[in-house]
Amino acid sequence: MTHQTSQNSDMQECIEACKTCHDICLQMALTHCLRVGGKHVEEEHFRLMINCSEICQTAANFMLSDSSWHASVCAACADVCDACAKSCEQVGDMDECVQACRHCAESCEHMAAQRQPAGSVRQSSDVSPGAHA
Amino acid sequence: MTHQTSQNSDMQECIEACKTCHDICLQMALTHCLRVGGKHVEEEHFRLMINCSEICQTAANFMLSDSSWHASVCAACADVCDACAKSCEQVGDMDECVQACRHCAESCEHMAAQRQPAGSVRQSSDVSPGAHA
Amino acid sequence: MTHQTSQNSDMQECIEACKTCHDICLQMALTHCLRVGGKHVEEEHFRLMINCSEICQTAANFMLSDSSWHASVCAACADVCDACAKSCEQVGDMDECVQACRHCAESCEHMAAQRQPAGSVRQSSDVSPGAHA
Amino acid sequence: MTHQTSQNSDMQECIEACKTCHDICLQMALTHCLRVGGKHVEEEHFRLMINCSEICQTAANFMLSDSSWHASVCAACADVCDACAKSCEQVGDMDECVQACRHCAESCEHMAAQRQPAGSVRQSSDVSPGAHA
Repeated sequence: MTHQTSQNSDMQECIEACKTCHDICLQMALTHCLRVGGKHVEEEHFRLMINCSEICQTAANFMLSDSSWHASVCAACADVCDACAKSCEQVGDMDECVQACRHCAESCEHMAAQRQPAGSVRQSSDVSPGAHA
Repeated sequence: MTHQTSQNSDMQECIEACKTCHDICLQMALTHCLRVGGKHVEEEHFRLMINCSEICQTAANFMLSDSSWHASVCAACADVCDACAKSCEQVGDMDECVQACRHCAESCEHMAAQRQPAGSVRQSSDVSPGAHA
Repeated sequence: MTHQTSQNSDMQECIEACKTCHDICLQMALTHCLRVGGKHVEEEHFRLMINCSEICQTAANFMLSDSSWHASVCAACADVCDACAKSCEQVGDMDECVQACRHCAESCEHMAAQRQPAGSVRQSSDVSPGAHA
Repeated sequence: MTHQTSQNSDMQECIEACKTCHDICLQMALTHCLRVGGKHVEEEHFRLMINCSEICQTAANFMLSDSSWHASVCAACADVCDACAKSCEQVGDMDECVQACRHCAESCEHMAAQRQPAGSVRQSSDVSPGAHA
């Protein structure tokens, strides 16, 4: 996309990481995992893949919209992607998903580090987390 | 993505068209349109851009999951993208969005043409629209 | 919600039907079906439940936003809910889901019947499907 | 919903708070705010309402699916709802939205407090945050 936004290259990279992780988790869960069965449809693992695809989608949408609150959502996304990477590694035969989740977790943690301390946000009279940096 | 699915190249192209259209509509609405104001935040136009981004996302997710029902969702997506392209053209200064919506509408119409007649689906004892082709 | 919208009581009922169907499909798939296993995680059935929850969510969101294009999305939602009801019936032990899907399919078909013929929409210079009734 | 899940009454209340906040933010933004214009379509405010509706939807979906990671998403949801309540208060004429956002922020903060410290989660060989309580 060529039109002007305030998104820097780190954010563009994180958007791509979230979109890729969403696509791979959703596609692998609802095609590969359901076809193979067994460990691939174990409750906690399978649910985590669906949850992971959804939070990645939401994190990408926050960043695409230039939300002032992307860092909070990226923090949650990093937690879920990190867990999903570990779960996929334990199941095995999920290398593509492991890599996508790990890359997304790292990229989202980098974004989350821009988050203001909760206290400073709550005491501010302004609604924007970037206004009192 | 390299793992095996039944998705052919037409569907892969439609997934990409939906994803691009989603990203551009959401991003332009919540950054460009809100910043410029005026005609860009006219009620019917702005709502259509948000609606368009959502149905594109859902259509892409159906195709990523190899859903037997992607054609029904692509038919709806074609309707909305077609309307959004026209609305963006009338507003002006939205060329990127016009093109993304038109390309997505065409690609989704192509997918929707694979849909079974409603009658044959409803009379079938099977739940899959592909089982009685 | 008490503020003024153009939503009539039929649409309010359809919004509720979609929201209920979304909640039950998502919750039963990711809790009950994964726990029970067997037929409940059969590929086509399980995928349909996840797909059904997503299109119900999108249809509800279109109606909540007073979209002029809700009928197209409701048509797709009726197709998917109808198929999901049949699939849940075949699996068995899914009565709550069968009923929610059937009720949502009927309510969405009623909404979809308000759709303009595709030809009239495409030839119109206006982007709103309601403008040339 | 009457089938068995591990969701306690606090979580059920939080699911309802998220669903209500999603519905009101989406509906008021895309109907009331677009119709009234002026301050109601100011960039940061309007974007926040759309962002708020999405994270509420995602938080509700995580809890409906009994996700082990709902607390992380609820923490993000609390941040966004808190900001959206303040923004709606500043705009004025948005009492219903202010109340829904505040109630959701409080309920989500309560859920988020169940979150494990990040360090303990990351060092665990298990992917479930509940396994090392």
